[in-house]
Amino acid sequence: MISLQGIFPPLPTAFDFHQALSTDKMQENIRDLCRYDLAGFLVLGSNGELVNLTYQEKCRVYEKCREAIPGDKLMLAGTGHQSTYETIQACRDAAQAGADALLVLNPSYYKGLMNHKALTKHYWAVADASPAPVIIYNMPANSGLDMDADTIADIATHENVVGLKDSGGNMVKMGTIIDRVRSDFQVLAGSAGFLLPALSLGAGGGILALANIAPGLCLNIYRHFMDGNFEVARKAQLTAIPLNTAVTRQWGVPALKEAMDHLGLYGGPPRSPLLPVNSEVRSALHRLISERDIHL
Amino acid sequence: MISLQGIFPPLPTAFDFHQALSTDKMQENIRDLCRYDLAGFLVLGSNGELVNLTYQEKCRVYEKCREAIPGDKLMLAGTGHQSTYETIQACRDAAQAGADALLVLNPSYYKGLMNHKALTKHYWAVADASPAPVIIYNMPANSGLDMDADTIADIATHENVVGLKDSGGNMVKMGTIIDRVRSDFQVLAGSAGFLLPALSLGAGGGILALANIAPGLCLNIYRHFMDGNFEVARKAQLTAIPLNTAVTRQWGVPALKEAMDHLGLYGGPPRSPLLPVNSEVRSALHRLISERDIHL
Amino acid sequence: MISLQGIFPPLPTAFDFHQALSTDKMQENIRDLCRYDLAGFLVLGSNGELVNLTYQEKCRVYEKCREAIPGDKLMLAGTGHQSTYETIQACRDAAQAGADALLVLNPSYYKGLMNHKALTKHYWAVADASPAPVIIYNMPANSGLDMDADTIADIATHENVVGLKDSGGNMVKMGTIIDRVRSDFQVLAGSAGFLLPALSLGAGGGILALANIAPGLCLNIYRHFMDGNFEVARKAQLTAIPLNTAVTRQWGVPALKEAMDHLGLYGGPPRSPLLPVNSEVRSALHRLISERDIHL
Amino acid sequence: MISLQGIFPPLPTAFDFHQALSTDKMQENIRDLCRYDLAGFLVLGSNGELVNLTYQEKCRVYEKCREAIPGDKLMLAGTGHQSTYETIQACRDAAQAGADALLVLNPSYYKGLMNHKALTKHYWAVADASPAPVIIYNMPANSGLDMDADTIADIATHENVVGLKDSGGNMVKMGTIIDRVRSDFQVLAGSAGFLLPALSLGAGGGILALANIAPGLCLNIYRHFMDGNFEVARKAQLTAIPLNTAVTRQWGVPALKEAMDHLGLYGGPPRSPLLPVNSEVRSALHRLISERDIHL
Repeated sequence: MISLQGIFPPLPTAFDFHQALSTDKMQENIRDLCRYDLAGFLVLGSNGELVNLTYQEKCRVYEKCREAIPGDKLMLAGTGHQSTYETIQACRDAAQAGADALLVLNPSYYKGLMNHKALTKHYWAVADASPAPVIIYNMPANSGLDMDADTIADIATHENVVGLKDSGGNMVKMGTIIDRVRSDFQVLAGSAGFLLPALSLGAGGGILALANIAPGLCLNIYRHFMDGNFEVARKAQLTAIPLNTAVTRQWGVPALKEAMDHLGLYGGPPRSPLLPVNSEVRSALHRLISERDIHL
Repeated sequence: MISLQGIFPPLPTAFDFHQALSTDKMQENIRDLCRYDLAGFLVLGSNGELVNLTYQEKCRVYEKCREAIPGDKLMLAGTGHQSTYETIQACRDAAQAGADALLVLNPSYYKGLMNHKALTKHYWAVADASPAPVIIYNMPANSGLDMDADTIADIATHENVVGLKDSGGNMVKMGTIIDRVRSDFQVLAGSAGFLLPALSLGAGGGILALANIAPGLCLNIYRHFMDGNFEVARKAQLTAIPLNTAVTRQWGVPALKEAMDHLGLYGGPPRSPLLPVNSEVRSALHRLISERDIHL
Repeated sequence: MISLQGIFPPLPTAFDFHQALSTDKMQENIRDLCRYDLAGFLVLGSNGELVNLTYQEKCRVYEKCREAIPGDKLMLAGTGHQSTYETIQACRDAAQAGADALLVLNPSYYKGLMNHKALTKHYWAVADASPAPVIIYNMPANSGLDMDADTIADIATHENVVGLKDSGGNMVKMGTIIDRVRSDFQVLAGSAGFLLPALSLGAGGGILALANIAPGLCLNIYRHFMDGNFEVARKAQLTAIPLNTAVTRQWGVPALKEAMDHLGLYGGPPRSPLLPVNSEVRSALHRLISERDIHL
Repeated sequence: MISLQGIFPPLPTAFDFHQALSTDKMQENIRDLCRYDLAGFLVLGSNGELVNLTYQEKCRVYEKCREAIPGDKLMLAGTGHQSTYETIQACRDAAQAGADALLVLNPSYYKGLMNHKALTKHYWAVADASPAPVIIYNMPANSGLDMDADTIADIATHENVVGLKDSGGNMVKMGTIIDRVRSDFQVLAGSAGFLLPALSLGAGGGILALANIAPGLCLNIYRHFMDGNFEVARKAQLTAIPLNTAVTRQWGVPALKEAMDHLGLYGGPPRSPLLPVNSEVRSALHRLISERDIHL
């Protein structure tokens, strides 16, 4: 079975200043980040502005990123759509392009109807049809739907469902799931804000926006925890929180892109309706980066 | 300026029992419903499973429905996507297919970033580029984002933004908006559950799931209110509420489709991950339809 | 049966500048407001800072307000506490002091456990023991618990439960309740923001913070609706909304008290932890009062 | 400075079968639980049905529990009320009765007005007047208000504010607070569901409903973490979660009391409107207790 152990940055999708997709810039970022001991990359997660691309553009991102991601690193690919049909299609296209595993965000538009039965049937149909292993993706802040532990644990009984990225950060839920699933099911923290708490419960790593701009800090939390240097891991976790909050919940993808530009990667503009950060946010970000001594 | 006065059913999108799009069945439903004095139809709203279609399928729905909708009735078309770019594209394609006005659901995936500025810029960019007038669509139960009165009123200052469909049902917000917008801006109730309260504040009509299965009852509320037969309108409103709740908030699109089948229209299955209603829901629905004396 | 038809101001509780209870000032306010054709007064509702008084102070408010409220006007008294025991005690003490009916806010601290059964048993025990008729009070913005239509309709089957004050403003819920309860059960709007929509569904009046500072405007909405002058009522409703929002959801009790001071009644300070409005809010309030031409 | 390091059960308040307060039964429970190496007890927290007692009863609980709690164990006492005035009064009465520190739940009735300024002023006024040190209590599931990290960190700058019990379980928030406060400020987990994650961030222990029925298991998580036996602590944490969920979020105080009865302590009935658990919940609870091998 595929191992999801370690730290994965969810790559932002690069756009030029006319808002056109630039896979060249994504390839450069991948090559720069490969200096770090990362387990791989996620393409087209929430930080990858999945929802802002046309279907054709998504396929191009899968292909072009796979070209740049070395064979010894995993490419995880976001393939969730609202319909089961289009989700399966995207799983096939991403696997065809070389994705090692597929991160499937749950459908959420018909929130009131996405109960245990509907979600289980959806994920199982996707897992049945998908040529590559499926990772459940729970992202309540964006989807507006927080899948419960029962539903996730039941979806996880399918043999082609190998893991969970949870971005909700509810540690009781994460513990409940880990207590219930088979021992080789792999749980990943969806944010650096709660990486250490998640590891303390048995998570195997994380898919972390912060790993795009502070991969060393993220790896410090992970490695020191794994090595039993508990207090060092804790200090790194506390250091990580404010900057992580800034580039996720607080100011989101545009701030992550600004920080990438500031640190020497390609960030560029987000795609509309997302707006670039304003000058106050930019200054606050730069201050945080400097205070917390972040550099690539 | 286009008049949105009156009652519009938001047509469900028809699928056959292999989940393939069937525009023939939609055309038959349109012809059946044209016996009633409806102002027109909405295609590809939330009841039209907008999010469950591929882009190509959406274009086919715009075209085939326009063929069936008579020239003296409006075709409103749902065109909202997460990106400004794809929203504009859909507005152009729907207008090209003959849509009279475009119902634009707000982007909502990056909820925390969809503030006043981002939403205003998005809608104005869409309204600038759209060949047909734009109607704002606020649908918090599905999008997970409830646009506030200020944002809506400011978006409404654009001359190509002619109306609002509000499905949130917050009457204080609706009143606040009506108090602030120009006098020819047109507000439509997004659900039959609060049609009369909305009319009492100055709404001009509604886009109502219930109008697919009980157009006569919806028109009764509307006409009697307009004619000053207040108590008759009130009785009709109270009659409408439980069945409306059943086919919207409670059991949603699958229940609406079941009711259509039961009443002699084509309902058919919803597209996965939506599931057909189970047998208890079906019985409860039939009971409600019979109790409230609904027929076409 | 007691008639709750008409408009009731929920009197703020008066404190002096040392935060001590001043029932004298409340009596003066009552006398001033009695110039208007109000159906009565509510004492110790949310605007009466019910939760900020000791039990002894509450009893004093019941007694002293009853002295000032003329016999031909109703005194409604807020008596809800978290425990059934203390709620019953307060109902007895308020009735003893002369309250005509008792407004009982639901217990809400153990939100997850306040299901249909717990709430029904609570209200029925209170109604059994209460010497005066009981009015259900649903106030989700403060209690954090929004009782559903089923629960309210079932509580309403008790013969000593005569009405509902709903401050949630969900018109579909209000319609559902009115459709289900016995014909003499009386529903009151809990805010002037949705008075007209509530009347349109069959509500008999309202308990309205705004009636403390704009009783004439509130009575205009009510009277013109009752008299069939529909468009006049609608204009008054739209006029009322922004000022009502200011003294309720937006800036709350402190703003209501500031507006009372500004208009010649006694407002005075709220009790801590509530803070008096700051100077910007004060200016904005005065501007609104002037723009909307409010005076006593 | 007082040390809050370790595990504290929040004692349920005992009632007899006529719902009368029974401090005798509470004293017996205290003596039974003193066999474990607990740091002390909390009286009149959420599990102590604080809101269901009259003020006089609260004072009796403070006194009678202090009699039974040995001098080498801390008595923490819940003293939060909605008004600053009554909160201060309760702090004085609890300190007078011998409480070592006071757990102050934030006021929350006027949710929209309980901003940074109002909450800071409230807590500082309480801390100024309180004869014993103050612990901030954040309990969003019951209060309906989740104090943010900034507010908590600013309140914590007062020298008589010595700690925080956080029952919200948001680990990013907990980490943010720990990153910001002075080094001797003490954070306690408010639920056994996230004890280990909280310890991993630097929390010093917990006030845990589960410690009333499974003190050994709670102490295992705590001690093994402190001793660096990380995997043992993790296993204990996973064991604890389902039973903890059952007696907190899922079935609450009535289930905690049932479990106490089942395990040989005095549980007894909750006070109305809380209802005793029904027979299915009772069976499910007993099964969980047996499966997870819990005994006193």
